[in-house]
Amino acid sequence: MKTNWTGLIAAPHTPFAADGSLNLGVIEKQCEKLITDGVIGAFVCGSTGEGVSLSGAERKAVARRWVELAAGRLKVIVHVGHTSIPDAAELAADAQAAGADGISALAPYYFKPAGVGQLLDFMAPVAAAAPELPFFYYHIPALTGAALPMIPLLEQATDRIPSFAGLKFTHNDLLEFAACLRFENGRYDIFWGSDECMLPALSVGAVGFVGSTYNYSAPLYHKLRAAFAAGDQAEARRLSDVVMDAVRALLQNPGLPSGKAIMEGVGVPVGAPRPPLRPLTAAQAEVLVARLWELGAL
Amino acid sequence: MKTNWTGLIAAPHTPFAADGSLNLGVIEKQCEKLITDGVIGAFVCGSTGEGVSLSGAERKAVARRWVELAAGRLKVIVHVGHTSIPDAAELAADAQAAGADGISALAPYYFKPAGVGQLLDFMAPVAAAAPELPFFYYHIPALTGAALPMIPLLEQATDRIPSFAGLKFTHNDLLEFAACLRFENGRYDIFWGSDECMLPALSVGAVGFVGSTYNYSAPLYHKLRAAFAAGDQAEARRLSDVVMDAVRALLQNPGLPSGKAIMEGVGVPVGAPRPPLRPLTAAQAEVLVARLWELGAL
Amino acid sequence: MKTNWTGLIAAPHTPFAADGSLNLGVIEKQCEKLITDGVIGAFVCGSTGEGVSLSGAERKAVARRWVELAAGRLKVIVHVGHTSIPDAAELAADAQAAGADGISALAPYYFKPAGVGQLLDFMAPVAAAAPELPFFYYHIPALTGAALPMIPLLEQATDRIPSFAGLKFTHNDLLEFAACLRFENGRYDIFWGSDECMLPALSVGAVGFVGSTYNYSAPLYHKLRAAFAAGDQAEARRLSDVVMDAVRALLQNPGLPSGKAIMEGVGVPVGAPRPPLRPLTAAQAEVLVARLWELGAL
Amino acid sequence: MKTNWTGLIAAPHTPFAADGSLNLGVIEKQCEKLITDGVIGAFVCGSTGEGVSLSGAERKAVARRWVELAAGRLKVIVHVGHTSIPDAAELAADAQAAGADGISALAPYYFKPAGVGQLLDFMAPVAAAAPELPFFYYHIPALTGAALPMIPLLEQATDRIPSFAGLKFTHNDLLEFAACLRFENGRYDIFWGSDECMLPALSVGAVGFVGSTYNYSAPLYHKLRAAFAAGDQAEARRLSDVVMDAVRALLQNPGLPSGKAIMEGVGVPVGAPRPPLRPLTAAQAEVLVARLWELGAL
Repeated sequence: MKTNWTGLIAAPHTPFAADGSLNLGVIEKQCEKLITDGVIGAFVCGSTGEGVSLSGAERKAVARRWVELAAGRLKVIVHVGHTSIPDAAELAADAQAAGADGISALAPYYFKPAGVGQLLDFMAPVAAAAPELPFFYYHIPALTGAALPMIPLLEQATDRIPSFAGLKFTHNDLLEFAACLRFENGRYDIFWGSDECMLPALSVGAVGFVGSTYNYSAPLYHKLRAAFAAGDQAEARRLSDVVMDAVRALLQNPGLPSGKAIMEGVGVPVGAPRPPLRPLTAAQAEVLVARLWELGAL
Repeated sequence: MKTNWTGLIAAPHTPFAADGSLNLGVIEKQCEKLITDGVIGAFVCGSTGEGVSLSGAERKAVARRWVELAAGRLKVIVHVGHTSIPDAAELAADAQAAGADGISALAPYYFKPAGVGQLLDFMAPVAAAAPELPFFYYHIPALTGAALPMIPLLEQATDRIPSFAGLKFTHNDLLEFAACLRFENGRYDIFWGSDECMLPALSVGAVGFVGSTYNYSAPLYHKLRAAFAAGDQAEARRLSDVVMDAVRALLQNPGLPSGKAIMEGVGVPVGAPRPPLRPLTAAQAEVLVARLWELGAL
Repeated sequence: MKTNWTGLIAAPHTPFAADGSLNLGVIEKQCEKLITDGVIGAFVCGSTGEGVSLSGAERKAVARRWVELAAGRLKVIVHVGHTSIPDAAELAADAQAAGADGISALAPYYFKPAGVGQLLDFMAPVAAAAPELPFFYYHIPALTGAALPMIPLLEQATDRIPSFAGLKFTHNDLLEFAACLRFENGRYDIFWGSDECMLPALSVGAVGFVGSTYNYSAPLYHKLRAAFAAGDQAEARRLSDVVMDAVRALLQNPGLPSGKAIMEGVGVPVGAPRPPLRPLTAAQAEVLVARLWELGAL
Repeated sequence: MKTNWTGLIAAPHTPFAADGSLNLGVIEKQCEKLITDGVIGAFVCGSTGEGVSLSGAERKAVARRWVELAAGRLKVIVHVGHTSIPDAAELAADAQAAGADGISALAPYYFKPAGVGQLLDFMAPVAAAAPELPFFYYHIPALTGAALPMIPLLEQATDRIPSFAGLKFTHNDLLEFAACLRFENGRYDIFWGSDECMLPALSVGAVGFVGSTYNYSAPLYHKLRAAFAAGDQAEARRLSDVVMDAVRALLQNPGLPSGKAIMEGVGVPVGAPRPPLRPLTAAQAEVLVARLWELGAL
């Protein structure tokens, strides 16, 4: 069920109020910014969206709000990953009922799948709860601990998951990424998930990208993609250097809190992350945002 | 809020029917076996109980069933750990409302706490949802990835969690375990969680034990504890050898599926584990159960 | 002491006879092939060269043979890394006395350096034993376990090592690699060490490359570099696909034994690796070499 | 070639002068202290002895000095582990020629053995260079990265290594340790290598111990062994608590430098460790030594 979605898909932050409760009112601002910035989709309730830190009811509320506000102007992929099949399936069914454009799920992250077969045992009933929506496996071994090989997954996926559409590939192994892109002549969508390495990924054929920095730096990435498409290597490298410097600044502190601080810095009050994550200090946030302005990343 | 619970606390398997749905009717058999076998408590919906593989509603149903059936004859500790504070807090509140004797929680297992402070940020609101119940932190770094030092946790815990009672310590570091036991002259319960090393743990002072093999081998462990208490080193070592041989047999295949196969083998139909875990084959189960009978572990 | 060496530097295999002893006579064939193939240098006694599996006397003999045969036609970088400073320093001094063009060393791989300062404590006396030769730190955390940040190393290196020239960067973190390349406007040589990702590395500015597949596939990589330099993205990607397919074929079995099998397949009898590595079976070698011919990688 | 050596075997520090050179003159003091303290053997040039940080010539000199000074009063086991078979074999042959009582070797620690077979490929020629000496495999996966299962090793070892005598087991897996002890009714020596867990190890049958803290705290450990042998559980636990408190104090800083600081504190000037390790500061050393006196560990 390949989608051929091309371009930038942002992974939005979930907004919280000062007391830690959901602040759904902020989503409109996030959504309008993405549309204004030429982003084509939103990957909601994923890692950046702190999906696993939300209750099931909260996850549904966030997903439904995005679908409603996107109103067809953005593709909305709802992340439904969980350690529990019934919970994940319920989220999947709700995403389909709400009118989402796709779903995605992480590998279960407590009991780790011992192989691709076990991973598919888990994924199949989840995807089957939203049979009309393209299903993307979300590969992020650094967070799930599921370091499984992706080519065998692609080989077996459609037999087990009729709606299988591809991967959100958040891992810095370009050898495997490129092999997945080329698998059966590009049979599946393989979205690149390491924003800072967009140029290397473009060089081996990436066309779709899912990431957190597209929430605020999308114009910079559009320029980078355009320079690459035009064959302007020098300009592409210059823009890639800006991207990399921005991400290196962001990684001076933990990534997700840094991203939320940047959103605050550009006037989108997404609030602090939930525990066990902690927000940046005001001083850290100020330094970071100033650096991103200086770089031209905002 | 130390409990001074002494003896064996089993971590029961959650029973599933052939279609993977909850099979609550089996719990009575599990519960009566534990009581018959002199087990003093049940740690429900933990790792062995596949708590993270259940929906929230299923977790509540299992916990409530155990409380009801135990009827004061077993201490019931409900594991409420989750990656989401609201979900965990809801489980905690329900455990208290149901009349459980204690609660416990894992470290969040997707976003890992960077330190003890962040861990307590997460645990404090969870424990506060069941303020009358002793709270046990469930330390199992091999599964959560949270390899935090436990002495600093003990030093800070009560300030953040008034109901803090101690640890379920599932990690093979006896140096740290013994230090926790002796912390402030035994201020907290420190339950030992590696069944196969009961004798080494006894040697450094363990008095409470939480584990999965107490579901079926409790009499063997009682004998081991008695031999140790009587100062009969030779007999204690002989019994420890049986325990270790049994666990080594069990670990020829993945542990949790092995445990469920043994329960089936002793006539308690707890069914197969949920994905991503897979059950043992019939042949594997037969070999395993025969070996445990041969060893005298059943 | 930047060298500005640009192009391909091969990491040659060390040839062994059937009884496992050094087979120095084969080096001439290796050396002539590199020169014929337009390779600019040889990185000898490194990982591919099984340096740590040789005695000190053997390492010196191999290094001296390469310097002698290269006769100025290839730059010869001698890897002198060891866990022992006196052994490493002796190798360094011998390399300088023999007329090598540079030296390099791994982080000590038994006691791991706890930080960049401790790494430099080790490297400084080693480099000082060959003060006239440019010194390259060989960064390969997957094998040494020394996962240290490279920007702080570059910041401190020259103060501790006057002959410091840069890095052999064998790690798939392109974010850090690109930052190292750009450090102080390109103050140091940063050689890229993941052959299969040459195109991604070119995209962020790599100009020097050290690797094992340049022993037999150098012409393919020259074409790839030329296509990139000419701005021919489609051809560059096509050639990168061949490179990647070849490396994926090679990685069906352990990499170093695969490389030695390929050398045998192209008529350079480098023999089997030393224990604990094992050679490919004849059947594995045949399949691999046939696949590389089919791909046009040989 | 089981030895049945029972008791404490110390792993002595290698003494260095202020300029980092070997200071062989100190060994006499070390040796006499061990004999006075009732230690039965010395495991020289191992991890504590910084064997891998010495040149081959230095390793031979240290080993020969120990054999000469021990003069039959201590068993001398020479660690000959290396990443290079010829170097390791040369050390083994020299140990036999010098009159050592045994040899031992680590798994190769750069190229890691993929299985027990590959490990034995490496060990067999090393052991064969000292065919008259019992050979002990030194299992310390935390430092070598070779996390291989020991029962299969014991099953295959004697076929490949006629002089195989057992293991130095430095890993906190008491389940595996106990299984090794009981393998074929105690066919091999299995020396316990985690000093701080002597009491747990005694409880499962340990009789031989190799460790670094026996250099200075041997009398404490003798008392602990005696209390255990006498069946005095309370006293054994009290002494074990002292041992554990001492090791916990030691581990406030990196272990090997702490150990050298303690030796200095008891008047044996073994000097600082070689890079990449760094010595404790004077203040750290003072606190540590005072704490050990306070505990009665010195």
